[in-house]
Amino acid sequence: MIGIGIVGYGYWGPNLVRNFASNDSSRVIGVSDLDAAKLSACTRRHPEISTTSNFAELLRNPRVDAIAIATPVHTHFELALAALNAGKHVLVEKPLAQTSDQVRRLVDEADRRGLTLMVDHTFLYTPAVQKICELILQDQLGEIFYYDSTRSSLGLFQSDVNVIWDLAVHDLSIIQYLLDEDPIAVSATGSSHVTGSPENMAHITLFFESKCVAHVSVNWLSPIKVRQTFVGGSKKMIVYDDLEPTEKIKVYDKGITLNAQAENAHQFRIGYRAGDMWAPHISTKEALQSEVEHFVECVSTGASPISNGLSGLRVIEVLEAASRSIADHGAPVRLKQQRPISERVRAIA
Amino acid sequence: MIGIGIVGYGYWGPNLVRNFASNDSSRVIGVSDLDAAKLSACTRRHPEISTTSNFAELLRNPRVDAIAIATPVHTHFELALAALNAGKHVLVEKPLAQTSDQVRRLVDEADRRGLTLMVDHTFLYTPAVQKICELILQDQLGEIFYYDSTRSSLGLFQSDVNVIWDLAVHDLSIIQYLLDEDPIAVSATGSSHVTGSPENMAHITLFFESKCVAHVSVNWLSPIKVRQTFVGGSKKMIVYDDLEPTEKIKVYDKGITLNAQAENAHQFRIGYRAGDMWAPHISTKEALQSEVEHFVECVSTGASPISNGLSGLRVIEVLEAASRSIADHGAPVRLKQQRPISERVRAIA
Amino acid sequence: MIGIGIVGYGYWGPNLVRNFASNDSSRVIGVSDLDAAKLSACTRRHPEISTTSNFAELLRNPRVDAIAIATPVHTHFELALAALNAGKHVLVEKPLAQTSDQVRRLVDEADRRGLTLMVDHTFLYTPAVQKICELILQDQLGEIFYYDSTRSSLGLFQSDVNVIWDLAVHDLSIIQYLLDEDPIAVSATGSSHVTGSPENMAHITLFFESKCVAHVSVNWLSPIKVRQTFVGGSKKMIVYDDLEPTEKIKVYDKGITLNAQAENAHQFRIGYRAGDMWAPHISTKEALQSEVEHFVECVSTGASPISNGLSGLRVIEVLEAASRSIADHGAPVRLKQQRPISERVRAIA
Amino acid sequence: MIGIGIVGYGYWGPNLVRNFASNDSSRVIGVSDLDAAKLSACTRRHPEISTTSNFAELLRNPRVDAIAIATPVHTHFELALAALNAGKHVLVEKPLAQTSDQVRRLVDEADRRGLTLMVDHTFLYTPAVQKICELILQDQLGEIFYYDSTRSSLGLFQSDVNVIWDLAVHDLSIIQYLLDEDPIAVSATGSSHVTGSPENMAHITLFFESKCVAHVSVNWLSPIKVRQTFVGGSKKMIVYDDLEPTEKIKVYDKGITLNAQAENAHQFRIGYRAGDMWAPHISTKEALQSEVEHFVECVSTGASPISNGLSGLRVIEVLEAASRSIADHGAPVRLKQQRPISERVRAIA
Repeated sequence: MIGIGIVGYGYWGPNLVRNFASNDSSRVIGVSDLDAAKLSACTRRHPEISTTSNFAELLRNPRVDAIAIATPVHTHFELALAALNAGKHVLVEKPLAQTSDQVRRLVDEADRRGLTLMVDHTFLYTPAVQKICELILQDQLGEIFYYDSTRSSLGLFQSDVNVIWDLAVHDLSIIQYLLDEDPIAVSATGSSHVTGSPENMAHITLFFESKCVAHVSVNWLSPIKVRQTFVGGSKKMIVYDDLEPTEKIKVYDKGITLNAQAENAHQFRIGYRAGDMWAPHISTKEALQSEVEHFVECVSTGASPISNGLSGLRVIEVLEAASRSIADHGAPVRLKQQRPISERVRAIA
Repeated sequence: MIGIGIVGYGYWGPNLVRNFASNDSSRVIGVSDLDAAKLSACTRRHPEISTTSNFAELLRNPRVDAIAIATPVHTHFELALAALNAGKHVLVEKPLAQTSDQVRRLVDEADRRGLTLMVDHTFLYTPAVQKICELILQDQLGEIFYYDSTRSSLGLFQSDVNVIWDLAVHDLSIIQYLLDEDPIAVSATGSSHVTGSPENMAHITLFFESKCVAHVSVNWLSPIKVRQTFVGGSKKMIVYDDLEPTEKIKVYDKGITLNAQAENAHQFRIGYRAGDMWAPHISTKEALQSEVEHFVECVSTGASPISNGLSGLRVIEVLEAASRSIADHGAPVRLKQQRPISERVRAIA
Repeated sequence: MIGIGIVGYGYWGPNLVRNFASNDSSRVIGVSDLDAAKLSACTRRHPEISTTSNFAELLRNPRVDAIAIATPVHTHFELALAALNAGKHVLVEKPLAQTSDQVRRLVDEADRRGLTLMVDHTFLYTPAVQKICELILQDQLGEIFYYDSTRSSLGLFQSDVNVIWDLAVHDLSIIQYLLDEDPIAVSATGSSHVTGSPENMAHITLFFESKCVAHVSVNWLSPIKVRQTFVGGSKKMIVYDDLEPTEKIKVYDKGITLNAQAENAHQFRIGYRAGDMWAPHISTKEALQSEVEHFVECVSTGASPISNGLSGLRVIEVLEAASRSIADHGAPVRLKQQRPISERVRAIA
Repeated sequence: MIGIGIVGYGYWGPNLVRNFASNDSSRVIGVSDLDAAKLSACTRRHPEISTTSNFAELLRNPRVDAIAIATPVHTHFELALAALNAGKHVLVEKPLAQTSDQVRRLVDEADRRGLTLMVDHTFLYTPAVQKICELILQDQLGEIFYYDSTRSSLGLFQSDVNVIWDLAVHDLSIIQYLLDEDPIAVSATGSSHVTGSPENMAHITLFFESKCVAHVSVNWLSPIKVRQTFVGGSKKMIVYDDLEPTEKIKVYDKGITLNAQAENAHQFRIGYRAGDMWAPHISTKEALQSEVEHFVECVSTGASPISNGLSGLRVIEVLEAASRSIADHGAPVRLKQQRPISERVRAIA
């Protein structure tokens, strides 16, 4: 039984408490928040959980094995570092921290102490993304040619971060989860339509060593909500629409065929295949429930989470590179490769 | 009554012949093609139209006032130049020619001789694009923030041109028709998933002096056909789906509101408006019929067409710049401004 | 301030408690349920509300002005009658009772005592149905030609009632709310695909004195969920899709035009109008919140609710007639007219 | 090589001529029409085909083996009978004739002479309906529970026939093609919203001996076009949307499961299965091309067509019964069983 302390009981914290509390292998020991009203809301819903306005109490409590952090982004680094220093495993809401330097320090600290550091990239734990990953691992798509995603709606302009830190972060975490390789460079463009406000619309292209390319389009100023991703492979192609109530994933047995001609390698004729479409049944299990199970499992066994610190780091490195490219009107920014692909973790324990 | 000679009776030529033949103010004098079988097909359908395998005969015929060219792209420049030199008005299938230098020579020649030079950017003459233009000219959208378009499907890989010359050309012509300003720079990325084949997938961002931005996504390797354009304005926003049988254009009375605060110009609160959606009735008139009427009218009155030589030139300049940017992984390429906006023609005569 | 007692804290009761508790003009005095576990769930969420397993306590409590009943259908009659006899106003979950005879006794009792009797036809209080009613009252649709509705999905087979008492009841309440007249006869067909189970699929036609016709199709055994209603008028027509997240109502400016010819009244030529489509913005206010406000208002002022006892009676009479017609393979069953249309109440107070 | 004579070159005739002309096993000998303008249109398109305004010439021509009739409905009987009497095989546009008595005489005459009599129920030859039939014959759906279809749009009010003779006829032919049994009774309701005009909206229920039920909803006064059919089986269910450009058929692996309990046959618990959805690739072959091939094959081999005279008769008997039920406000009308199911023909030769 893993003892959990949760910091922050605002928007996301209650979901963490609810899921850790209903998980058979974890127990919520205490909740910390600076706001007394939020603590009493917690007490009303979960009378058995103690609360405190002093985060340090959780760190001192030997029954707390792990800390889940759901506070504003600018506090992530300091809180996570303190928790690691106190010997606690850590789960942090995305993004892991404000800079890649901060994340590197957290990753090093967790490594040094042999503690689990996991970032809450919730989309990876949705049944839809899990199903796409499963299809890719079964090689049903063939060689992956592209990932092309649009994530837009009207609203939730934020004043401190731009649209890529808010929305593209989801796609970047999915891309690195699904693909076998890391991007080597990024080109991005963005624009702000409100004077003095950060970019509310952006387009990001990720380049890879292989033929694969990824593109992410994000927009806070769209008349309709769009959550649509195309994954194109040499064998099959997927359309993933997260707004569909049931058929979120459609797998198309479509593609091109190449008929090489002997006399000239450069000549070819392209043919087209059009086969069946198939929408696999997608479980309706709550993503956060799977994520909490995975975190508890990793803490118990020492396994590395699929959204471990390194994956959180890579997402932030890409966001930083994309921000530089945006400032430069699309000029490509190279990404350094920082981890062997073999360290990639894909299976939920 | 304007006499028309048509060169090329392959895929598009028959449509030109049919529309010029049924237009009250034009008469098709002759059709030229190198393929005798195509000429007899023409004779069967239009026994009253004479045919020839010698293009020069059309040029020599004094009853021919204008030449419409529907031949392969690499012949456009030579044929159009010969027609202008023979004193004929000219309508050319898109793209006008293979390079901007060629187009400039055609534009100059037409100008010098006072002849009409028009490029067949058919989409401009669709009732849907005409309706969007009308809404913009009525200032129903307010300040235009963005144009964001996706044009993809499976198929029609071409071996001589890449996907932007095939598909993005439509959006580039629409963008310059709808917007009040020319782009000042372009950033584009593209990739080929078939070795030895030109790019089959590309994303283009156009930058403008104003806050406006345009983005075009094109893909020959998509499992489903998409023809969707978002136009975002400060007052209203449009979703234009060309695959919808009837409600191609949806106008959303949605957007953000800014509540400036006196003490600090940098502070503002963003509010959201969500009003009605409205799908104006769209005529089902064939685009080419409107286009042919417009060409005949311009030839008769000397008015400049909405898709005149300069607009064809600008489209090709953007395609050339986008190609350079693609080769450079998104690095921005500046576009020179070549014409005063006042020369823009928007109303169909 | 109206004091409310709520009977039944199962599926629907908690929603009633929450909405009456947050309403400014009502106070929840007590909740009654036979199940102690449910009562303690209530206490945990609403510590300020007293609970009892003895319904009679609520009736004896002078601070209780009105009783809301959310118990199984077979208890509705007895509980509602007791409440009326105790001088309490009553709100009952649909259907009001098991037979029209029972409902008539409740209506008479409420009338005799001058008490408010309201049935919880929640759909009438949805912003979508309110908007359709508003458009009809503004005569935007013209003469109403038809109401044609499909309500189907997979699941929730019930063992005690058939599909029309479960699903068609919604449409029957909407029909009588929207239309200016009562049906005069009903023809219905139904079938059961599970031996020993009540009908899981049915089609009902309602006949009116006028040209208007209503049709309701319901199905518990559909592969996909459908909630779609067409309302056709002489001027405009509506498609109402309750599953659409935002554009639930689409108003089509379409229809036919009749060109009478003088010489012969029987000859006419029918023309077709195809105009704009318009999707009015629909509020997202919770239907039950509006309903609770309306009940409290009616109790306070003595006004008749839009879903008063008579309207609940009429719905049950139609259900009973439809059941007889189903048993007779569609043979029409006449409905007696029981109330002057002038007693119809349409405006939410 | 089968020689074909075609009567009527109006709306449908040209399609028959084109398809018989391009079929390798048939040759169009002549076309007859009373309108000289139509005949010259035919000559222009098909100079090799002789034309006549005298139908009798086709009958006398020994090179004509079969007659295809595409004239107004009231002429079908007389023309078809004359053709059969002249020893010609016959293909007639739907409906076969105006009354079941007429059809019976044609069926008898064809039988007596051993000639092929086929009705042009084009929908049976669409790749979509062929695919559904294939799935049923493979027993992929299990026991068929229902067929429920909606066919509506705005327009094409007809003055001589009502909406069921115009639209429901398609569904009735599909139903008898797909199902293993004939309906035993019909209940139908209909209404006319234009004084003096036939019914423009109708709903038909077909009853079968088994649990199966069929329902058809047709409407000439709908704001949007709908062509949607649900086929529910004990194993799988189909949604067939004829307006979908590519995924016309969706097969849902969904349904209910019954858990019988030993002690009481009347008690059961219903469970729900929700599995994958699958959209088989549908050929884009023109239905009329398949139909013409089938007719030619049946004429050549003496095989009975899937849309033979008996199937045309059954459709008209159901239409007549439905008309009587409509006049009687839904009262059921029994259908007599006129043919052993073993005579049913399902496979396209």
